[in-house]
Formats: sequence, C-alpha cells, structure tokens
Amino acid sequence: MDVRVLASTPDPVRVIYTAARTCYSAGRPAELWAEEAARPRMERLVRQVVASGHHSVLEHVAFTLAVAGVSRSCSHQLVRHRLASYSQQSQRYVAGPFPYVTPPSWTRAAALAGRYDAAMAELNHLYEEALAAGIPAEDARFVLPNAVTTNLTMTMNLRELMHTVGLRTCERAQWEIRDLFAAVAAAVRGVDSFLGSFLVTKCERLGYCDERETCGRYPVIGDR
Amino acid sequence: MDVRVLASTPDPVRVIYTAARTCYSAGRPAELWAEEAARPRMERLVRQVVASGHHSVLEHVAFTLAVAGVSRSCSHQLVRHRLASYSQQSQRYVAGPFPYVTPPSWTRAAALAGRYDAAMAELNHLYEEALAAGIPAEDARFVLPNAVTTNLTMTMNLRELMHTVGLRTCERAQWEIRDLFAAVAAAVRGVDSFLGSFLVTKCERLGYCDERETCGRYPVIGDR
Amino acid sequence: MDVRVLASTPDPVRVIYTAARTCYSAGRPAELWAEEAARPRMERLVRQVVASGHHSVLEHVAFTLAVAGVSRSCSHQLVRHRLASYSQQSQRYVAGPFPYVTPPSWTRAAALAGRYDAAMAELNHLYEEALAAGIPAEDARFVLPNAVTTNLTMTMNLRELMHTVGLRTCERAQWEIRDLFAAVAAAVRGVDSFLGSFLVTKCERLGYCDERETCGRYPVIGDR
Amino acid sequence: MDVRVLASTPDPVRVIYTAARTCYSAGRPAELWAEEAARPRMERLVRQVVASGHHSVLEHVAFTLAVAGVSRSCSHQLVRHRLASYSQQSQRYVAGPFPYVTPPSWTRAAALAGRYDAAMAELNHLYEEALAAGIPAEDARFVLPNAVTTNLTMTMNLRELMHTVGLRTCERAQWEIRDLFAAVAAAVRGVDSFLGSFLVTKCERLGYCDERETCGRYPVIGDR
Repeated sequence: MDVRVLASTPDPVRVIYTAARTCYSAGRPAELWAEEAARPRMERLVRQVVASGHHSVLEHVAFTLAVAGVSRSCSHQLVRHRLASYSQQSQRYVAGPFPYVTPPSWTRAAALAGRYDAAMAELNHLYEEALAAGIPAEDARFVLPNAVTTNLTMTMNLRELMHTVGLRTCERAQWEIRDLFAAVAAAVRGVDSFLGSFLVTKCERLGYCDERETCGRYPVIGDR
Repeated sequence: MDVRVLASTPDPVRVIYTAARTCYSAGRPAELWAEEAARPRMERLVRQVVASGHHSVLEHVAFTLAVAGVSRSCSHQLVRHRLASYSQQSQRYVAGPFPYVTPPSWTRAAALAGRYDAAMAELNHLYEEALAAGIPAEDARFVLPNAVTTNLTMTMNLRELMHTVGLRTCERAQWEIRDLFAAVAAAVRGVDSFLGSFLVTKCERLGYCDERETCGRYPVIGDR
Repeated sequence: MDVRVLASTPDPVRVIYTAARTCYSAGRPAELWAEEAARPRMERLVRQVVASGHHSVLEHVAFTLAVAGVSRSCSHQLVRHRLASYSQQSQRYVAGPFPYVTPPSWTRAAALAGRYDAAMAELNHLYEEALAAGIPAEDARFVLPNAVTTNLTMTMNLRELMHTVGLRTCERAQWEIRDLFAAVAAAVRGVDSFLGSFLVTKCERLGYCDERETCGRYPVIGDR
Repeated sequence: MDVRVLASTPDPVRVIYTAARTCYSAGRPAELWAEEAARPRMERLVRQVVASGHHSVLEHVAFTLAVAGVSRSCSHQLVRHRLASYSQQSQRYVAGPFPYVTPPSWTRAAALAGRYDAAMAELNHLYEEALAAGIPAEDARFVLPNAVTTNLTMTMNLRELMHTVGLRTCERAQWEIRDLFAAVAAAVRGVDSFLGSFLVTKCERLGYCDERETCGRYPVIGDR
C-alpha cells in the first residue's frame, strides 16, 4: 500500500479562515483574504471551528491522493464514502498480471499460506489463458480474487477526511481500510502538520467512545 | 440476477405534479395536492418536465429495489453512482458458500468453461478451509473471486434512475451492469408503467447518440 | 406556517429492517422482505441501528413534505441542507401579493409593530406598481423583504431528517427554522409515531450537549 | 458584483491527466504523476475527457471563489446548486447598513427609480431603529429586501463549474445569476485560460440548443 498527496488547496488555513470570517463579517471575502492575519490567529479560528462542530467551512480545502496497492475488497469499501471523487484503475481496460495483498492472518496460518500463494498464481494463470482464448478482459476478470490490488486517484475535502479517518481508524474497522486511512492521515500530515493534526480517530477528537463495542481507550457515553 | 421493487413513493405522478406546480403557482403545496387534477393533466406536466430537462422535481419520487445475484464486479461499478443509498451484503459478516456468475463468454469458450467452474469450486473450498483454520471471514474472503454474487437493497430517486438507466443500458456499457439496469427499468415499469416509460437508454430520450463510439441506432451529433 | 406529509415510503419499518438484514444475512433482500418479521422484532432492529450510529440504512425511507408560509429568510437557511430535494415557489414566475411573517419580537415592540405592517404594505404596493410599469417580476421582487412567505415541496430521507431535526430544534437555532423543524417532526410523527420518535433534538438522542454554549438541559461533554 | 479566485488546485491539468490515466493504466498514480507528460499531451487528454462526457475526472480540480455584492435573490438561487461548498455572510450575525443591487429595469423606469432608492433607504432606517429598540438582528432583517447584498466564499469543482456555467449563462437564466456565472467563468479563465476555456454556455459545448425556448444561436435538437 502506498498513499501520497498529489495536490492540495494552497494556503489552506487562510482559505478556511477567510470562509469562516465571510459568515460573521461585513467585509468582502477578497478583503478578508488580503488582510493576511497572523498565522496563530488563523489557527485559533480553525481550532474553534473544529471544536464547535460547524464543519462546513472545512469543505473549502481538499486533498488529492494517490492510493496504490490496496485490494479490491478495500476499494469496494472505500468508494462507499460518497462525498469524494474517485478515479479507479479499471479491470475492463487494464489487463494483469496483478499483484495481490496477503492478509497477516493468512501468513500466520502456516499450512495455508502456501495454498494462498498457489491459488493466486493459478488464478493469474487462468486469467491469462482466458485472455489468450479471446475472452474479453471485462469477463476474464471474473476469476480474479478480492486480493488483487487496485489503484485510485481520490479527492476528499477536509470535512470528509475528518469524518472518514475518524471512523475508519477505529479499532472496529477492518484492518486494511484502517491501514489505508492511517496512511491517508499520515500523508496529509506530511504536507500540512497543522490540518493533519485533526485527522484522528473520532474518540480522540470527542474525548469519548460512541461505538457499541469499545476497545476501552476512551470512556463510553450513555447507554450505548 | 433478480431485481424487484420493494417499495416506492405512493401516488408518484401526483407527487411530481404537486412539486412542479409548487414552483409556478401561488397555491400552497397541500392545496395543490388536494386539487386532485385529472390523471391526463398530471401526466402531461410530467412529460413537459422530462422534456424540458428541469429534472429536479423528479427527485421527490424514489424506488427501493431488491437486487440479488449480481457479481461483486457489478456491485463495485454500481455503488460508484453516488446519488443513491445502498445496503450491501457484507463479506465480513456473511460467510459462504457463495453462488457465482458465469459470463457467457466463458460458457462459450468450451475448453475453459470447465476450468472456470473448477476454479470456483476450489476457491470456495480454500475459503471454507481458511474459516475452519480460524482465519476471520474478513480475511478469508481475499480468495473469493469477482464472480461471487452479492445482494443489495438500493434506493434511487427517479431523476437518478433516468440518468443511470440512460447511461448503463447503452451498448457501450459492460454486459452485466447493462442487464442489471435493464432489469431495474423493467421492475419499475412493472409497478408504474407511465414513470417506467422514461427509463430508457439516453439516445432514445435524446433522439441522438452522444457517445464517442456509436452503435448506429441513432444519429451522432456534432464532432464527437 | 403549515407543514404536512404528502407522501412517504410505504411500510417503512420493514424497508429499514430488510435493508439492515441485507448486510448481515445470506438471504436475498426479496426473501427477507417476504419473511414478514413480527413488528416488535423489526422495531428492535431499527432501534439498534439508530443507537449504533450506522445510519445509512435509514436513507431508504423518505418523507415528502408540503411546507407553506415560511419566510424567505427561513427558506434560504433551509435549502442549505444539501442532502434533500426542494421544489420552491419562484418569485420569478409567481407575482404577489405575498403574505408575510411577523417575528414575535416585532409584535412585542409596540411602537415598531405598526411600522412593520406599514412597511410591508408599502413594499407590496411598490411591487405592484413596478409590475404595472412593465418591470418584470424577476426584478420587481428586489423590493420584497425577507418577511415575505414562500412555499416548498421537500423530500428528505430519514437519516437526514434525524440530522436536521436534531440540529435545528436546538435552542441555539433561530426561532423560525426551529419552529419549522419542530413542525416537520410533528408531521412525521403524525404519520408514523415510531419512526417520528427518533426525530428529536440531538441532545435528547445523545444524552449530552455538544454545543459550545449550552441551554443546560443536558450535561456538556469534555472541554467544549 | 465582484468575483475572484482565492485558491485552486495546483497543477490542475496534471491532476486531471493523472486521474484519467489511473483508470486506464497499470501504473500507480504517483508514477503517472511523476512522468511529467508534455503539456500538449496532457491537454489533449483533458479535451478528450470533456468531449467524451466522462466528466468525473474533472472533479479532482476545484476553485475557491470570493463572491461579493450579489443580491440575496441571487444567493438564494446560487445555493440551490448542491454539489458545492458555500460560506455565506449571515444576516443573523452581521448587522447593516447593507448596500443593495439595482436591476437595470428599475433604473430605466424613470419615475420608479427614485422610489426604489427611497424604499431602500427607508428599510435600512427601519432596520436600524429595530436594532436600537432591542430587536435581535435575526428578526430585524425581516424588513431587509431581496436587493440587499451578500457575500460568499464558495468552492466548486470543475465538473460542477462546467455544469453550472453551462446552464446559468444561457439567455434564459435570470440576468443577475447570468452575470454571476459569467464573472465566475472569467475569474477562472484569469487563473487558467485552458481549463477556463471549457466554462461556456452549454450550447457552445454541445453545438446545439436543448432548451424549450431557444435564443436562436444554435440549432435546436429534435422536438423540444
């Protein structure tokens, strides 16, 4: 798995600051933008916005990420987050051989680990034979397993990144998508450590756990 | 593949009629609703709305569909349509054996057809062994192929149904998703033949083809 | 202000039940639907879904509401909720006279109350004169005040209704939109008392207050 | 009215190029990005994407715009485009005096032009009196007319910009929102003349008119 930021909104803290002040100020946004507030003042406003829960102003900042080497199981889950843009490698147009992901539980299951690799090799072989026999790629792929990797270019705004990282880095999430969103958060922190600092598991931001089954890191609220 | 309508907005033509008239009338929507216009008059207004391209009033009517027996390849494409609601069978929680879809091109490829079924049987066997060895379902599924079937309950409004059926029943779409949306259109026509009549390939509605490569049924427009 | 349900998904609890079970069952959704589980069992599952926070299955149920007699201030706020469908009376196509909303604070400000009504009458008069002088309705309306009423037909799914009612019936919301969403919740309860029971201020559902300034009804969490 | 680009996705043509190639290439997006294709080749691919109608890859590029001095009539229409992010000056928090927009048709109606300005002055006066009398700003604003200006910071991706500019710069759109989107297109062209070149009235892109009433610039298609 490899996750990198390809592009992101320039001057993002100033963008959020300007958007937030547009709501509460008589000034025109282009004037508020030109004011060039001191960085600590802008950061303070961003922190207030995050704490207040009025997250719509965070939508003005987006990150475009290169995601490579995740399984098709993982990508199927990922694209269920509808408030984002995805361009995904197509199995109709791209013909293998495809690398594949091996879950740690298979690696540990000594007897089965070899069988896993053998099955992958066999399927790739059958897939190639099918292509050679004139079966179109869009049908040949029916034998490809979930383990096969895929690539995506994905764009998500900061509000949705906070939501998805908050949810998917929870202990209850499935390991591969948890790894994916941990890598997304790390990649964002790599280009903007301040905004990236808000990309944490939801319990860290809330100070409590709102899941039905808790891992125990944070106190549970109410009768959940 | 099996597609059925489980539920849909009651009195849908009157809903669209009331919504459209809300925009252009001084009357309150509850009064417009109570007017009980004659059916032909309401249908005429719906036809005008569709022809005019101002499709937002069509969003007030939705269909909830039971979709069963499509491959995971197909569902992965399906859920890329973001303006809909999906509840999909989870391979984390539901453990097989899973039925699978066989593309016609494999069936026709005489020598390979048997290999296809053998590979499916083998993978299901390896999957079961993995579960028996204590590998969690969410990891065991990595060996399951795209061909394995899945089920969804899906809700789409009429505007999005027109868009997706228009796009996905085009000759250029992949055969399984083309079959799926043909079945969706047929299921909607089964409960409402009038509204279902708008669920056609986009070229039939437009009177021309806007694809880059045309199947020739309709004239191509401009320099595409 | 007048809010009524015009239409809603039939058999909504069974729709949610079927959608939720689709995720966790090997059964096809049409079979799960046909099972006809006992009502208490279905309600228990809906309650679990709401408590768990996995609210996407609630999107399969939608309510179409007739909203009449709210101010244009209110409608401007309302349509900022983007996950809904609106058909709103157009001031380009519908020419007055328009009724108007009087906020209680104006009524109480004895000296000013009469001035308010006089201003409204004057504006309506100027508006009519402008139309008579050949100014198009789309320009004549520039003199119409925020107080002037508007009507909408609006469709929102249950997930978004829970979100918006939870947010907008909070003491911190502006009075008219608070009244509007209280009326929306009451109208939904009128057609489905069980599902309507989930349309409460967010603090009632959470058991605590997550606003920065609290009204004191529920304990505040953390350092907000 | 004043419209400026505050921020936009850096290296946008390369972003679109990388996203489009992610779908059809075996290469990882970060590799495709690093390839640094020649500008003409990237532009050719973007043109193909636009012509083909497969516009989802255009969503990876967004523009954040400062919009100032539009009427509340205009902003109410604007925010109906749901696939965008808006931060709008709040009449609850910002108290006047507010500038206002005068439609040309009022200016031309000699006798009425003076009445328009007088009404605006009177309303601003009543508004100020109301504030002085202790009426909260959120209620005082009920007397403010549609003509009063507002400011927004808005972020829209390129796909939605193409859609909204295409629709709203049509002759049939109301003059103020037509001016707004003409200014949006000009502002985008100011920072990226290539991508801005796609922000044209829909008939210019399509080569024909799909409106029910045509202005005659382009041939009408079919029986519309």
